[in-house]
Amino acid sequence: MASKIQTLPGFRDFPPQACALRNYLFRKWRAAAIAHGFQEYDGPVLESLELFTEKSGPEIVTQLFNFEDKGGRQVSLRPELTPTLARMVGANAGSLKRPIKWFSIGECFRFEKQQKGRKRSFYQFNADILGEAGPGADAELIALCIQSMRSFGLGPEHVVLRLSDRTLWMAFLAALGLDEEASIKALSIVDKMERVDADYTRQQLSHILGEGTESFLARVAAMKAVSSIEGLEAFVSGLGMEALSERMAQWRELWGILDAMGLAEFCRVDLGIVRGLAYYTGFVFEVFERSGEGRALAGGGRYDRLVEKLGYAPLHATGFAAGDVTLADLLESKGLLPSLLPALDCYVVYGGEAEKAEAMRAVATLRSLGISVDYPVKAAGFGKMFKQADLSGARLCLIFGGEELAERRFKMRDMASGGEVTGPLCDLVEGVKLRLAHGIEK
Amino acid sequence: MASKIQTLPGFRDFPPQACALRNYLFRKWRAAAIAHGFQEYDGPVLESLELFTEKSGPEIVTQLFNFEDKGGRQVSLRPELTPTLARMVGANAGSLKRPIKWFSIGECFRFEKQQKGRKRSFYQFNADILGEAGPGADAELIALCIQSMRSFGLGPEHVVLRLSDRTLWMAFLAALGLDEEASIKALSIVDKMERVDADYTRQQLSHILGEGTESFLARVAAMKAVSSIEGLEAFVSGLGMEALSERMAQWRELWGILDAMGLAEFCRVDLGIVRGLAYYTGFVFEVFERSGEGRALAGGGRYDRLVEKLGYAPLHATGFAAGDVTLADLLESKGLLPSLLPALDCYVVYGGEAEKAEAMRAVATLRSLGISVDYPVKAAGFGKMFKQADLSGARLCLIFGGEELAERRFKMRDMASGGEVTGPLCDLVEGVKLRLAHGIEK
Repeated sequence: MASKIQTLPGFRDFPPQACALRNYLFRKWRAAAIAHGFQEYDGPVLESLELFTEKSGPEIVTQLFNFEDKGGRQVSLRPELTPTLARMVGANAGSLKRPIKWFSIGECFRFEKQQKGRKRSFYQFNADILGEAGPGADAELIALCIQSMRSFGLGPEHVVLRLSDRTLWMAFLAALGLDEEASIKALSIVDKMERVDADYTRQQLSHILGEGTESFLARVAAMKAVSSIEGLEAFVSGLGMEALSERMAQWRELWGILDAMGLAEFCRVDLGIVRGLAYYTGFVFEVFERSGEGRALAGGGRYDRLVEKLGYAPLHATGFAAGDVTLADLLESKGLLPSLLPALDCYVVYGGEAEKAEAMRAVATLRSLGISVDYPVKAAGFGKMFKQADLSGARLCLIFGGEELAERRFKMRDMASGGEVTGPLCDLVEGVKLRLAHGIEK
Repeated sequence: MASKIQTLPGFRDFPPQACALRNYLFRKWRAAAIAHGFQEYDGPVLESLELFTEKSGPEIVTQLFNFEDKGGRQVSLRPELTPTLARMVGANAGSLKRPIKWFSIGECFRFEKQQKGRKRSFYQFNADILGEAGPGADAELIALCIQSMRSFGLGPEHVVLRLSDRTLWMAFLAALGLDEEASIKALSIVDKMERVDADYTRQQLSHILGEGTESFLARVAAMKAVSSIEGLEAFVSGLGMEALSERMAQWRELWGILDAMGLAEFCRVDLGIVRGLAYYTGFVFEVFERSGEGRALAGGGRYDRLVEKLGYAPLHATGFAAGDVTLADLLESKGLLPSLLPALDCYVVYGGEAEKAEAMRAVATLRSLGISVDYPVKAAGFGKMFKQADLSGARLCLIFGGEELAERRFKMRDMASGGEVTGPLCDLVEGVKLRLAHGIEK
């Protein structure tokens, strides 16, 4: 006897109940994206390693499932979908109607320490708008992000989208005399400061800012205190930076659209969100539980330089990703998961051989119309078959007995009410549809 | 500028048109399986290498994408779903209602030479029935296999299911004095004989059968000539092997169910199908184009020993797998692919800022009800917006102009007929639903 071989750490089996939950997330994500006019794409889960190092630098390799394949190629399981998207769009940009609104639901892989809400294999809902520079595209993307959460029953009492802006940050840091490289380093420290010791942050910043560290930290605290569009207007005008007035007009446009869509109550201005990755270039956001607990449910922002970086013609882009693990945890904790396993429509029981042939004919007919039907694949007495019908959870039991068939009729039992009726075999389909819709009174 | 990084050989990008085709296959497979009372499961695409070598022997490794992960584990992308299924069912067999009817749609990976109909990454539709030994389970499985093909519009004029039986083969080989090991070797040679030189087959067989090779080949030719259930009855009774009468009763039961279901016309008895793998134990089958061209569209059979081999309590099992690549090729060649990209329901155009706010409210409301809506994320003149509405392929264009809004109304245009009506804003949802259902006359 062989040893039993388990799933790898951080990987999951999906037996029917878990698979139904996963597919429920997929269905809702897909429906929201389609309602927002996005088109679905997908790419390979295995790619050239280079695709990911080109985007994220060689450091990313420590987080990858990468290897050399039997053809001597350096390959990796994808840690995210964006580089694949950039390739697909970049290669076909000329023939695609702008703006390009694409989404995908796919498995991604990261070799990371397992924690609550973090697995080594997870599913991501990715949506991106490419080919449009203005804040209308950011608003549209944020609308999808929020509406997809809403479609699970999550309201503004459950989740908040924290909205920030790399453009403001970069302008602010430039005004302090930092060049782009130093600015990106400083932002990466700000990104982590909520999660690490204050002294450590101070020490890291001092390498970049020297004596300016304390006044910088005071400024950051003031920026983080901003929590509304009005507060942001006041803060920015207090800076007296003329160059930012155009950016504030873009903020007002973005906020105005979200407000008109009834989605502003989900959003909070929060400059504490900076997103660590160097590649973001404009509005950035993350969605969290309103309570502040747990890992981010979604995150994204504008990345106008990536497509060019991967070797294609420049293309404006904004996108987000949401994960299945944190979302499922939240829905479960809020009691927002519906009953998920589909109920069987009909269970068919039959008497002897002649009845079985008639029953099999009925089974095949109903199934070909999309009605779900099961029956005992192994013949047994009526008593045992009825017990199986009970266990099946079917809504109707169809009974093919000798007596009924002699009259070219069959019997239907409503498994909830216990009510029974008979109907002519020639009306099988209509009879079953009627009773599935309206039941049978006892 | 970086070099452009392509997909790996044998892997595919799925831009929207290709993704829609892939998802169409998934939807039809899923609907057929659910109609047949099967429940969906899935497992990780990355597993311990051992899971696959335990099932298939160490030779399988040459066909795998396997590697050592950063935790020092020997792992592999899955070449098939069955070992994962066996683990999942084996580990939970006590709590699962019998028979266990499960299906999955998932990506699999094999490092193989690319050919027509064969990729290194492909999707498989897997269905299995576990916990039932009798031919009723095989019939039920074959019914799903055929009905899933039928749901794409494939009829008996397009495809044929070639049905064979390892039990008959093993009994026949045992009667020739071959032990199990020699029998399995002989079957593996028979499996390949259609694809290789006759002299090579003869030479291979002579290692096992010696002088009996010629009479064996004559017998094989006679077996392969059998093409109907009646022919099989005659052939088997001609063998005079008493032990096979019970098996023939099982053939009659299986065939009787398929016949009652109206599916026998898709099936042909064909003992030339033996399935090379050692693990099959009973009825086996493959589905091909009726013309005989191309690779198998699906294949499967009974494998009663696998669950035990993987370390769990013994469990009867029968299953099949169908692939996306050969199926899509066939549907395309027969003109059976419908138009697949979902049409947009509404495109919204608007005048100035006030109209835009009202338009955005409408957009959000309609989308939250699952109606697909798009609009120009970048403001433009009416003329340009109407052009975008045209390009969008939407069925209705909703127009939010200053004139209409002054009266709290909006305008709808049927993009096919050109007909227009106006409606009160307060009836937006009902108005749009009505016009999506019935159009607007010019």
